[in-house]
Amino acid sequence: MKKIIFDTDPGIDDAMALLLAHACSDIELVGITTTFGNASIENTTRNALYLKQKFGMSAEIAKGVNIPLDQVRTEPATLVHGENGLGDIKIPKIIDTQISPLIAHDYLIETIKNQPGEITLVAVGRLTNLAMAIKKAPEIGKLVKEVIIMGGAFGHNGHTGNLTPFAEANVYGDPMAADIVINADWPVTLVGLDVTQQTFMSNAYLEKLRVSSAKYGQFIYDITRFYAKFYNDDLGLDGFYVHDSSAIMYLVAPQIFTTKQGRIRVITDGPAKGHTLFKSSDRVFSIDEWAARPKQTIAINVDPQVFNQRYFDVICSDETD
Amino acid sequence: MKKIIFDTDPGIDDAMALLLAHACSDIELVGITTTFGNASIENTTRNALYLKQKFGMSAEIAKGVNIPLDQVRTEPATLVHGENGLGDIKIPKIIDTQISPLIAHDYLIETIKNQPGEITLVAVGRLTNLAMAIKKAPEIGKLVKEVIIMGGAFGHNGHTGNLTPFAEANVYGDPMAADIVINADWPVTLVGLDVTQQTFMSNAYLEKLRVSSAKYGQFIYDITRFYAKFYNDDLGLDGFYVHDSSAIMYLVAPQIFTTKQGRIRVITDGPAKGHTLFKSSDRVFSIDEWAARPKQTIAINVDPQVFNQRYFDVICSDETD
Repeated sequence: MKKIIFDTDPGIDDAMALLLAHACSDIELVGITTTFGNASIENTTRNALYLKQKFGMSAEIAKGVNIPLDQVRTEPATLVHGENGLGDIKIPKIIDTQISPLIAHDYLIETIKNQPGEITLVAVGRLTNLAMAIKKAPEIGKLVKEVIIMGGAFGHNGHTGNLTPFAEANVYGDPMAADIVINADWPVTLVGLDVTQQTFMSNAYLEKLRVSSAKYGQFIYDITRFYAKFYNDDLGLDGFYVHDSSAIMYLVAPQIFTTKQGRIRVITDGPAKGHTLFKSSDRVFSIDEWAARPKQTIAINVDPQVFNQRYFDVICSDETD
Repeated sequence: MKKIIFDTDPGIDDAMALLLAHACSDIELVGITTTFGNASIENTTRNALYLKQKFGMSAEIAKGVNIPLDQVRTEPATLVHGENGLGDIKIPKIIDTQISPLIAHDYLIETIKNQPGEITLVAVGRLTNLAMAIKKAPEIGKLVKEVIIMGGAFGHNGHTGNLTPFAEANVYGDPMAADIVINADWPVTLVGLDVTQQTFMSNAYLEKLRVSSAKYGQFIYDITRFYAKFYNDDLGLDGFYVHDSSAIMYLVAPQIFTTKQGRIRVITDGPAKGHTLFKSSDRVFSIDEWAARPKQTIAINVDPQVFNQRYFDVICSDETD
């Protein structure tokens, strides 16, 4: 079993990724830590509780902070994810509102320490919680199995940014946190726009999923209507790119991804705020702020057909109550 | 005749570019403005006077300032260009030390205004002088014919930096100036590492030039010994890339270059200081600090064989006293 803590700001595609993890028989969802971005921290935490209740998850939920490390507040992405963060579907009353007494980064530290070598962190939002955890307790670096992040854009296949021309939204949302997390002493894989924008789920695919999965199909269809409309209005697409689920898919089926190793820095302000710069060569330049950084992994290619089939199969395989 | 003002910090490859311009029968070298970087402003100005005297140039020389716009002083690149900026060849006493009473940026403004529509600026060092000129007198933008810059690195053919992994040395040396000059209202072409590192002059080529050009051959050979040694020590190369001459070559033979149009921003500080980010698409992103900028031109490919032959031919064609 692959034990994960899922750090997330649900968020429509966050929910789709969370359901993929929940449906996957070899993933044990130990915890969910919430962050802000797609919606406020109140809404993302409420949405996590709702998803847990609706789909019968046992994961503990820990609420994160509500501001990036640079203290620059930005508005939630309501244009993409709706006012409530789940495409403005009607969200019923949450019956069990219990969350961890620990704030997300302390929850991460404690859970990792209690299960040394066991936990993979999968982060699909801003990296604030992970940065605060590794800053406060650097020793968890050696205790984490792996860190998989949906974030960044490295220019492969022409993919350089979504929120700005040269920044992916999660990294832009807390670039200082991203630079800390990527350059900490733990093994990081970045699943960025280079691959997430290679995979596309059409509305026809979602229609098919709707009728094929009794447990998840209608729900995924409903929450994605708002998201698909944004993609249609903004980019003229009949469907959407597959961001957050790509991080879970990398955990489940790394063999369908091509990766590359190198050192990474994040631009923390100015016009290119959130830009991620990947240096693959080992040459040390006269001035070189990459040279002393750890080598991490980025995903640069994926097989989108296999991806979509696998997502479909995993979702449809879970018919438990 | 193509009238140019050559903005330069000679500098070994600056000298090679200046001699190319001087030898070229359809270039009129109106003026030389000096900047700092390869050597101190005193040395680069002395070197300009020396080159003028030795090769009988009529160009007026105007001395520039000695500090970049961000006021961050850096050491001259003596490792690359020698203590005196010309590979530590013996420089004789300068007889005519007359320079313009105007500081470089005022000289640029006055000369451009006096010859509206006539002057092409060719800049092969830090862009401090040009930035100060266009800031002080934005009206010169409409009066300049063209601005050709050796600077930047846009990642084509894997060329992303020389001084740092992601910055070309001229832009790194005054990134604020570069962002101003590139985004001013005048037509700019950037001839960056993407092409300058495609062209390579071997030591054998320089030996051949030495015996083929009575006027320039021995001098070019002598000044490049130090430069070639740096390239050999640093990169294991038997010769060197052709940076500054590429800007003059673009003026002389634009047809051997492939170009691309787009909008450019320069990172002015942090680990990626001096990095140039080129956006070719017209898509406007939610947050987009490129959208309102002017479209400029970058060179992305060159024919290095034709380049070297042309340099050779022009240099050897000039046998005047």
